[in-house]
Amino acid sequence: MMTTQTISAHSADTTHFQHWSTQQLQAVETALSQWVGKDAPETLAQAMRYAVLDGGKRLRPLLVLASCHAVQGLETAALRAACAVELIHAYSLVHDDMPCMDNDVLRRGKPTVHVQFGQAGALLAGDALQALAFELITPDDGDIPPPMQARLCQLLSRAAGSQGMTGGQAIDLASVGKRLNQQELQHMHQLKTGALLQASVLMGAACGNTAPPALQGLTRYGAAIGLAFQVVDDILDVVADSATLGKTAGKDAANDKPTYVSLLGLEQARTYAQTLHQEAAQALHNSGLEENRTQLLHALADMVVQRAH
Amino acid sequence: MMTTQTISAHSADTTHFQHWSTQQLQAVETALSQWVGKDAPETLAQAMRYAVLDGGKRLRPLLVLASCHAVQGLETAALRAACAVELIHAYSLVHDDMPCMDNDVLRRGKPTVHVQFGQAGALLAGDALQALAFELITPDDGDIPPPMQARLCQLLSRAAGSQGMTGGQAIDLASVGKRLNQQELQHMHQLKTGALLQASVLMGAACGNTAPPALQGLTRYGAAIGLAFQVVDDILDVVADSATLGKTAGKDAANDKPTYVSLLGLEQARTYAQTLHQEAAQALHNSGLEENRTQLLHALADMVVQRAH
Repeated sequence: MMTTQTISAHSADTTHFQHWSTQQLQAVETALSQWVGKDAPETLAQAMRYAVLDGGKRLRPLLVLASCHAVQGLETAALRAACAVELIHAYSLVHDDMPCMDNDVLRRGKPTVHVQFGQAGALLAGDALQALAFELITPDDGDIPPPMQARLCQLLSRAAGSQGMTGGQAIDLASVGKRLNQQELQHMHQLKTGALLQASVLMGAACGNTAPPALQGLTRYGAAIGLAFQVVDDILDVVADSATLGKTAGKDAANDKPTYVSLLGLEQARTYAQTLHQEAAQALHNSGLEENRTQLLHALADMVVQRAH
Repeated sequence: MMTTQTISAHSADTTHFQHWSTQQLQAVETALSQWVGKDAPETLAQAMRYAVLDGGKRLRPLLVLASCHAVQGLETAALRAACAVELIHAYSLVHDDMPCMDNDVLRRGKPTVHVQFGQAGALLAGDALQALAFELITPDDGDIPPPMQARLCQLLSRAAGSQGMTGGQAIDLASVGKRLNQQELQHMHQLKTGALLQASVLMGAACGNTAPPALQGLTRYGAAIGLAFQVVDDILDVVADSATLGKTAGKDAANDKPTYVSLLGLEQARTYAQTLHQEAAQALHNSGLEENRTQLLHALADMVVQRAH
């Protein structure tokens, strides 16, 4: 009886989440399509739109929106913040794929931006996408109150910069062929992917008046899923094929890059992902936020750990 | 008698400006040295500092600070804004020098960043500098009130992005080997260099409570010196040598890039620079700002037009 109830509750949540996420993803696509490349010179606009539209899981936007939902924040602000985070993610992929970095030719099942638009085109598109992220969260149309704009810019710039994503990429670059210990690997990933995932959660929280215990809970949740995401990424790089991933599989091993799998082995890496999943759930339970308002964040944590690509 | 008075007044102004600018440049260098690369991973920090410190005329920071002085704005905010604008300028040079763009090996008399740190290092340093610009103007130490932070981010992101500097670079890239008319050339430069120079002036103005006529005057001043800067740049590319410029001279002609000199001829380009100089001065006179408070901006307009490198 207990089991049946649990399963029913879970199914109801899953359906609710799927309905919500379908709606939100549509809103994000519409907004991105409206904003990306608007009034930009023709070829730059094309490269920017190619890099951003019709692709990606949109995990970061969903985290922003779910977090805003959890704190009953301002939805117009969260939609802009959601798109801004996705632009930072998209620009980082464009630059990361370039020949001087990972030299990857396939991304989300399509030729990478530099293959399609040339290296200079990819460089400029990435640069413009980063600037656009900050444009989106500083509108002058009243969508976001100015102090909230400032807080969003604060969170996003730190997550994107040398103490966040770009810093992590620099450590990654310097670590090729080296044997990192788990602490070093963790630090690299906390910056490279964790910072922006965590910032997504915190930017959603910044769209409302979030009490300190809730903010602390969301901070811990963001840190846990940020790491879990990378552990799963490393697992998928080993177990999935390129077609499923939409990018070249097995690149890390081929490039002699340290990963959680190379460090812990496959089974221990899987166990670690589950542990982080539980930490994320626990952080939400301890946040003081209403349980029914954190269901979307729980579902996103499930998605991070259970994803196949 | 009249002439002597005028000369004396001019000399006094020049001395005042030189004293002021020496002080301000020291403050900017100290601030940049303190902030750039702080807490960044070692190699990234080195590349960022190499790209920014000990070089450059710092015209944009001086414009921010002089404009803030003209509106009696908040100096702590202006110093951060001044550094932020310089970081955007510095990052654009790093990326612009890369082999897939201008492929330049000399900048400010030193090897360019990608020569010194590799292409991946230059790419990441540029990306991190752009993010740092937004970090600097969103401090949580009370240096800048949050609504002012939002306004500064708004101005900077638009000047840096696809409707500003990066958009201009994209047009420039697409225009190699083409014959642009003066309107097209002007549009390209308004975006490529004009937007950030104008934004420097407006960011200084955003550090105070600037009345609409003053804001209008400063907007016009910024537009005029933005264009004048580029016209003079084109002239110097023809008449100066690499040692004086601190970068490779004659590149535009070698790359078959359209310039004001190729379009108007050298003499008419010089006349055009003078006309823009007068427009800038007139805009300040009509701004309603106190004359003694706009002297620094006048001196900077002189510097833009009379510079030798």
